[in-house]
Amino acid sequence: MTLSEPIAVLLLSCTDRPGLVSRISHFIFERGGNILDLDEHVDTEENMFFIRVSWSIGSFSIPTSELSEAFMSLAKEFDATWKIMIGNGKMRAALFVSRYDHCLQDILWRQSIGELAVDIPLIVSNHPDLEALAERYGIPYHYVPVNPETKKRAEQEQLDLLEKHDIDTVVLARYMQVLTPRFVEHFPSRIINIHHSFLPAFIGGNPYRQAFERGVKIIGATSHYVTEELDQGPIIEQDIIRISHKDTLRDLVRKGRDLERLVLARAVRLHSEHRILVNGKRTVIFD
Amino acid sequence: MTLSEPIAVLLLSCTDRPGLVSRISHFIFERGGNILDLDEHVDTEENMFFIRVSWSIGSFSIPTSELSEAFMSLAKEFDATWKIMIGNGKMRAALFVSRYDHCLQDILWRQSIGELAVDIPLIVSNHPDLEALAERYGIPYHYVPVNPETKKRAEQEQLDLLEKHDIDTVVLARYMQVLTPRFVEHFPSRIINIHHSFLPAFIGGNPYRQAFERGVKIIGATSHYVTEELDQGPIIEQDIIRISHKDTLRDLVRKGRDLERLVLARAVRLHSEHRILVNGKRTVIFD
Amino acid sequence: MTLSEPIAVLLLSCTDRPGLVSRISHFIFERGGNILDLDEHVDTEENMFFIRVSWSIGSFSIPTSELSEAFMSLAKEFDATWKIMIGNGKMRAALFVSRYDHCLQDILWRQSIGELAVDIPLIVSNHPDLEALAERYGIPYHYVPVNPETKKRAEQEQLDLLEKHDIDTVVLARYMQVLTPRFVEHFPSRIINIHHSFLPAFIGGNPYRQAFERGVKIIGATSHYVTEELDQGPIIEQDIIRISHKDTLRDLVRKGRDLERLVLARAVRLHSEHRILVNGKRTVIFD
Amino acid sequence: MTLSEPIAVLLLSCTDRPGLVSRISHFIFERGGNILDLDEHVDTEENMFFIRVSWSIGSFSIPTSELSEAFMSLAKEFDATWKIMIGNGKMRAALFVSRYDHCLQDILWRQSIGELAVDIPLIVSNHPDLEALAERYGIPYHYVPVNPETKKRAEQEQLDLLEKHDIDTVVLARYMQVLTPRFVEHFPSRIINIHHSFLPAFIGGNPYRQAFERGVKIIGATSHYVTEELDQGPIIEQDIIRISHKDTLRDLVRKGRDLERLVLARAVRLHSEHRILVNGKRTVIFD
Repeated sequence: MTLSEPIAVLLLSCTDRPGLVSRISHFIFERGGNILDLDEHVDTEENMFFIRVSWSIGSFSIPTSELSEAFMSLAKEFDATWKIMIGNGKMRAALFVSRYDHCLQDILWRQSIGELAVDIPLIVSNHPDLEALAERYGIPYHYVPVNPETKKRAEQEQLDLLEKHDIDTVVLARYMQVLTPRFVEHFPSRIINIHHSFLPAFIGGNPYRQAFERGVKIIGATSHYVTEELDQGPIIEQDIIRISHKDTLRDLVRKGRDLERLVLARAVRLHSEHRILVNGKRTVIFD
Repeated sequence: MTLSEPIAVLLLSCTDRPGLVSRISHFIFERGGNILDLDEHVDTEENMFFIRVSWSIGSFSIPTSELSEAFMSLAKEFDATWKIMIGNGKMRAALFVSRYDHCLQDILWRQSIGELAVDIPLIVSNHPDLEALAERYGIPYHYVPVNPETKKRAEQEQLDLLEKHDIDTVVLARYMQVLTPRFVEHFPSRIINIHHSFLPAFIGGNPYRQAFERGVKIIGATSHYVTEELDQGPIIEQDIIRISHKDTLRDLVRKGRDLERLVLARAVRLHSEHRILVNGKRTVIFD
Repeated sequence: MTLSEPIAVLLLSCTDRPGLVSRISHFIFERGGNILDLDEHVDTEENMFFIRVSWSIGSFSIPTSELSEAFMSLAKEFDATWKIMIGNGKMRAALFVSRYDHCLQDILWRQSIGELAVDIPLIVSNHPDLEALAERYGIPYHYVPVNPETKKRAEQEQLDLLEKHDIDTVVLARYMQVLTPRFVEHFPSRIINIHHSFLPAFIGGNPYRQAFERGVKIIGATSHYVTEELDQGPIIEQDIIRISHKDTLRDLVRKGRDLERLVLARAVRLHSEHRILVNGKRTVIFD
Repeated sequence: MTLSEPIAVLLLSCTDRPGLVSRISHFIFERGGNILDLDEHVDTEENMFFIRVSWSIGSFSIPTSELSEAFMSLAKEFDATWKIMIGNGKMRAALFVSRYDHCLQDILWRQSIGELAVDIPLIVSNHPDLEALAERYGIPYHYVPVNPETKKRAEQEQLDLLEKHDIDTVVLARYMQVLTPRFVEHFPSRIINIHHSFLPAFIGGNPYRQAFERGVKIIGATSHYVTEELDQGPIIEQDIIRISHKDTLRDLVRKGRDLERLVLARAVRLHSEHRILVNGKRTVIFD
């Protein structure tokens, strides 16, 4: 939905109990907001409550700058994990790449035509190859080489760049380096990776070769949040494409490229529109 | 979601305005209900509000028999179209068939294993062919022949049967007769049809032959509510399957059979769980 | 394709070399056959040649009973693995089941309407539950209980039944016992299993629970030939369905049922129409 | 399949009769060719035969320049429509665009990474908007304005450009002008269009709005050869994506963009690899 009027989005999870929707929607109503979209989920097994609600704040009775503070007491009472996003603000995302250009190319193009609500202040890479592509879109490209000896220092350099540019989210657009736990903990549920397999099948390296050798009839791609364990983070989005015995390994790579860029783009869109809540090892997606 | 505790479901649509979610959720909360699932949609073009909310009534403060009446004043204020379903009650559905057994077979089997929350008090057919199948599941089979001369009388006989058995919904499981507007108006948004094409492509008769001759690479099936205009009612569910030049007309029919029964079954499930609201010529599906 | 005239089908694999198609098609042509369908595949990595060719034998110059012998010298020269099927003969298949009826139900129904070119002389089960369903289709049901102590004896009883009924192929329609290597070696590439996951993800028990806990956004089903290693045999067919955070474990099981029966039915159809060649751990599917 | 050795591809259709595969494969074999891939189809209703066969010509006994002539007598005997492509030659394609960049962008990128076996000597547009994109890939951009008065002259200018650049195939990458029959007849089965609907649904203008208003649950895109009748040419490829009541018209356009570029790219790939034969109003696709 695209709206010209200013909106606010609340994303919240807490232990379930009666009255949560009533209290939250009343909070909005009594301040003059009109709910545009409300999605709610109760995980009855875990007794957890999840909500995403967006509302127009054109006639809101309190200044947006005081909104989060106003909501604070309710959130405390619920012992909730929450955030409120104001206006049509864009998320600040850094793209990490290596040598493959298809995901980078796709995200930059989508961003350029207004499909993604993100600002991309910088691109970071362990290879110099894709600088020309970055330049074409006018985005600074930081070449930070990484090898086993320099990894620690390189990650510190990356973290400094991210801090300096006030980056909220890191998108690994086929970045071929494994991030250390130390790096990951700076961006909990804010690093998005694309893995070129239908996870949890074919974890680790060379998933297309693994798929080819196993003789599967369908290949996939998976976008997930990065956690300390490789390829184990909460899954945001997956998709698949059918293959046959006629497809060589090269064909798998070719077909997979389309999957990877579509799946990653959808994950970035969902994340940037604040449509994802993490529920342990799983995600709640309010699409 | 399957719950042993008693629940209520409200399905409501009205002109949008501030406070609707707040008022409705407060109505539930103040009577001791706990919301289990809430789905809401605002059609900003039409300025319409749609909601489906289910809640546990185990500790509800008013008897369920008084629930609809209690909600009445709110509904009037909103000038809403609405209904409240109590408990885990099953919808009473009549199945209409002709000679093809695949949809009938599939619905009866799903109902028998508890997949569909419907009671099926009778099957009506313009052919005697499928009586044995009906018997196998212990369901009365009414053979009502139809031809141009007897159509009016036949439909009256059908309507009498439906009334006698207190039928809520009619499922046309490949029933090959066109219903008259007079019949249709007795069951507004309560007659579900399966059309064996990807509507609006291939309206009318012989859609598989039409698809074959046009040389499409994908065929589909569409389940929709029946309105006065043939194949023009609000679409509930669609799905497709890929075909190729190798597929003969017979192959299209074979592949289509699987589509038809899956799509119809999904539509019946959505309808029986009160997950569908009609919005003009379109549907809002709270899945 | 359905043809009333008699046909022959050759299925052959051998090391690739020039002239194979020419020699084989000439063999057919010079005896008065007309090729109806020819599918050929060369695995350039393994240097292997695979072919399926069907032809009309209405005006064939040699009796069908001598066809295999006539082809023998060519096959020897190519050092090929091959078979020729004459006429519109049906494959003799035994269905193995346990307690779930959805796959059994589906295969019996498809066979009854002529969708599958198989005869089903018997059903074998380690539980008595599904006998009524077997009876409905007039197929003898053999209850052979299996437990760790009796497994060896039970498998011998099963093998005797299969031999007595001249069974070509065993279909495991959600048969919940692991077959021993001794049993498997009697039916190389002739035991078809359905596994309720997107293999190689979620090998072994409770794949739906595994999928639920991992938080995948898509579930699958896989039909494969059974080999000595559990869930490692050559994959015949796979398909998937999208799920969301709203789906409980029960929903996964429900959605999976539809997948399982569709995928198994497709695999049985491909196998019964002699459209599958095994290429090491993979399959070549001439669909 | 990617091969470094030189290959030839024969694409042929004719009335079916015994011996066609034998004669064709023998022609290749006796000249020292080794068949790499052979796909054959018989349309039994129309009694038509279709074949695509590729073979290595590394040790071929006649010069490639004489190949077509050598095959001529066989082709005459069969009264066939046919062509032989030599080597790994690339098809020369002109891209026609208007203002939308997504299809153009995608094809140029795919071509640049070697995914499409085409040369693109020029881009033609009735708007100046996309010249910068063309420049980025170093391809001459010809701005040829079109309006009702100048259409005839404009098309002549386009035809001159195509002739001058020895163009084999025209790709309409969201070119928003209807071509006249006079233009079309210059490129029979060699103009590829992308229509942003699931044809034959939503023919003509504004298909996304039509789809939105009809309330379909799935939208599609169709790539087809252009014939004199608008949106009626033989379909090459189609694909779909699921939508819901939450999707606005803008969302349909956004989701459709991904469909359009994928479907068009697949059609261009199939065409450029000589994998398409036209069979009346339908296509035979040897993928």
